[in-house]
Amino acid sequence: MQKEKLLMTPGPTMLPPEVLEVMRRQIIHHRTADFEKTWDELHENLKCVFKTKQHVMTMASSGTGAMEAAVVNLFSPGDKVLAVSIGAFGDRFADIASTFGLEVIKLSVEWGKSVNIRDIREILADDINKEIKGILITHNETSTGVSNDIEAVAALTKDTERLLAVDAISSMGGLEFKMDEWGVDCVVTGSQKALMAPPGLSFIALSEKGWSACEKSKMPRFYWDLRKYRKGLEKISENPPYTPAITAVLAQAEALKLMLEEGLDNVYARHKKFALAVQKGIKALGLELFPDEEVSSYIVTAVKAPEGVEIGKVIKMLNNRFDIMIAGGQKHLKGKIFRIGHCGYVNEFDIIKTFAALEQSLAAAGFAFEQGAGVKAVQAALF
Amino acid sequence: MQKEKLLMTPGPTMLPPEVLEVMRRQIIHHRTADFEKTWDELHENLKCVFKTKQHVMTMASSGTGAMEAAVVNLFSPGDKVLAVSIGAFGDRFADIASTFGLEVIKLSVEWGKSVNIRDIREILADDINKEIKGILITHNETSTGVSNDIEAVAALTKDTERLLAVDAISSMGGLEFKMDEWGVDCVVTGSQKALMAPPGLSFIALSEKGWSACEKSKMPRFYWDLRKYRKGLEKISENPPYTPAITAVLAQAEALKLMLEEGLDNVYARHKKFALAVQKGIKALGLELFPDEEVSSYIVTAVKAPEGVEIGKVIKMLNNRFDIMIAGGQKHLKGKIFRIGHCGYVNEFDIIKTFAALEQSLAAAGFAFEQGAGVKAVQAALF
Repeated sequence: MQKEKLLMTPGPTMLPPEVLEVMRRQIIHHRTADFEKTWDELHENLKCVFKTKQHVMTMASSGTGAMEAAVVNLFSPGDKVLAVSIGAFGDRFADIASTFGLEVIKLSVEWGKSVNIRDIREILADDINKEIKGILITHNETSTGVSNDIEAVAALTKDTERLLAVDAISSMGGLEFKMDEWGVDCVVTGSQKALMAPPGLSFIALSEKGWSACEKSKMPRFYWDLRKYRKGLEKISENPPYTPAITAVLAQAEALKLMLEEGLDNVYARHKKFALAVQKGIKALGLELFPDEEVSSYIVTAVKAPEGVEIGKVIKMLNNRFDIMIAGGQKHLKGKIFRIGHCGYVNEFDIIKTFAALEQSLAAAGFAFEQGAGVKAVQAALF
Repeated sequence: MQKEKLLMTPGPTMLPPEVLEVMRRQIIHHRTADFEKTWDELHENLKCVFKTKQHVMTMASSGTGAMEAAVVNLFSPGDKVLAVSIGAFGDRFADIASTFGLEVIKLSVEWGKSVNIRDIREILADDINKEIKGILITHNETSTGVSNDIEAVAALTKDTERLLAVDAISSMGGLEFKMDEWGVDCVVTGSQKALMAPPGLSFIALSEKGWSACEKSKMPRFYWDLRKYRKGLEKISENPPYTPAITAVLAQAEALKLMLEEGLDNVYARHKKFALAVQKGIKALGLELFPDEEVSSYIVTAVKAPEGVEIGKVIKMLNNRFDIMIAGGQKHLKGKIFRIGHCGYVNEFDIIKTFAALEQSLAAAGFAFEQGAGVKAVQAALF
């Protein structure tokens, strides 16, 4: 008796039925009062999620597109930036900056750890002539299952000339983010993770300092020119500037409504509870977390593959036999870790089901443990 | 008795029920055999529509994003290009090129006319030192309802070093396009017009000459770097490079299947028949086409607003009272023309219905004509 495939991956994540219901509706035109009403609601609700008074702009692109938009709107060729990388997506942010001619000082942290704030502080302190114009950093690194403390990083740039740009693609909506209070200058995210909408939309917001950098930037930009998107939101010019991904926009508006109905604090508490339950279940099976426990992500849990077990086979069995998708490791972590996503539209029973299937698959792969121990631990933690 | 709003606009266009059925399905992961099967089918079918042996690449963006991709992949800052503009979208292509530091020679044609091939030939002939590296041109200009003869333009660049980049956003799938035979070096299009899918995807293909220019280009590019998308299609690296707009991709794959089932020649014949019927209906009402008749688009028909009639009111009445959306004029044509789209998922009765509503709305706005004459003319032309 096959049921719907359960995605326990760190994005794309599953869509609530209310969102799917919106997706099946006939297309409407974007230059209409109906669309604009939903568009305006979406943008008000995005401000709640970002915790900002600034405009949050919607673009048709993957999250990577918004990371490029951050780089080309905030900086000019030749500018020096500090790119903090704790994994594959931190590397990507640094690559984008190099591609557009920035001088990148890269602070590469061992995979599985979060950045040590002291290391950033020291680099900034050594930069006596204030040549470093800004910091690029990932909030939640899905490749390693680690979150950085953005509030602490922002404290180093807040009352300075330096800009802080944060890739919050996998965290926004799952981890609390206080853009204005923390003093973050640029935040980017995407629709397909904790925001419970289909992939294809990215969102970006700039602080006042960010906008002033945007005006001064000498980087050529057209599609990513945030000034055009802002003019649209301020009803100065056509809103939005290019044909938006209409269906995805309506779906995202619906998903945000659901999140606000649940209450953002409850959403964050749910993500934390699920993550801690997964950590307990992992330990009960005699497995080890890949990251340092205190920085292990509430979005996705990365687990070391046990010695002598071909973890690829376990992941495949979960997928092919039990219709549950979890993720393997990326780059040099392939075959060495597996990752369980628990963000967005996930409930307690999804976690329990995943552990039951994980136990069956680990046993089939020859791993020795007390059957039921994982399920018991997560159940106890969840209820 | 209200029925579904009928979009007779030049994009976004309506979605067939088969496409909507795909949209309502739960999200699937993009790194799966299921998704890759559909992804590969989509890309084979796109080659049929583009009539090319080259890879057609899919990006998550509006059509404008793909226009930017064309510019940054084919050229380097300082390169001289000829931008042919016959309306708002031709202007946009020229603006993008200027933004990225190209030296743009702009050939602006009076709105309502297509480019005169002799004018292009003369400019190229005067360019004795071959400083003009390429031509940017719109295939179908929705702002004016005019199509350019791309085959004739391509004949001027085909066996030369010069590149031809064509914005086929509103034409691809509605007007025949023979990329390889004509010798076009770069073609871009979008999902939301004749291709009958929701907005949010763009497609781009390069000729061998285009690829060789892409390798030589000194323009910084990351999200638009077509080499990454090609590597994905050639299974050299991750396919696709960034999270694709999964639902839109599946929807587009379904829509292309429908088009190929109908047969592309039949699809083109349908667009032509509907356009000629609309032209007859317009004349039967005593109205005038805005463009020169011989270049009037098969995608969208632009019509001069009759003297003394407030055309904005007519468009509003069609929309509010009859639930049929047609478009007004853009920029300086606002209030001076109206535009009836007839591309993508449109049938004979949509045209008849539109004319019945147009007659009622024109009469209410005080325009004098023989009631029923428009409907009679389109019916005769359609059946």
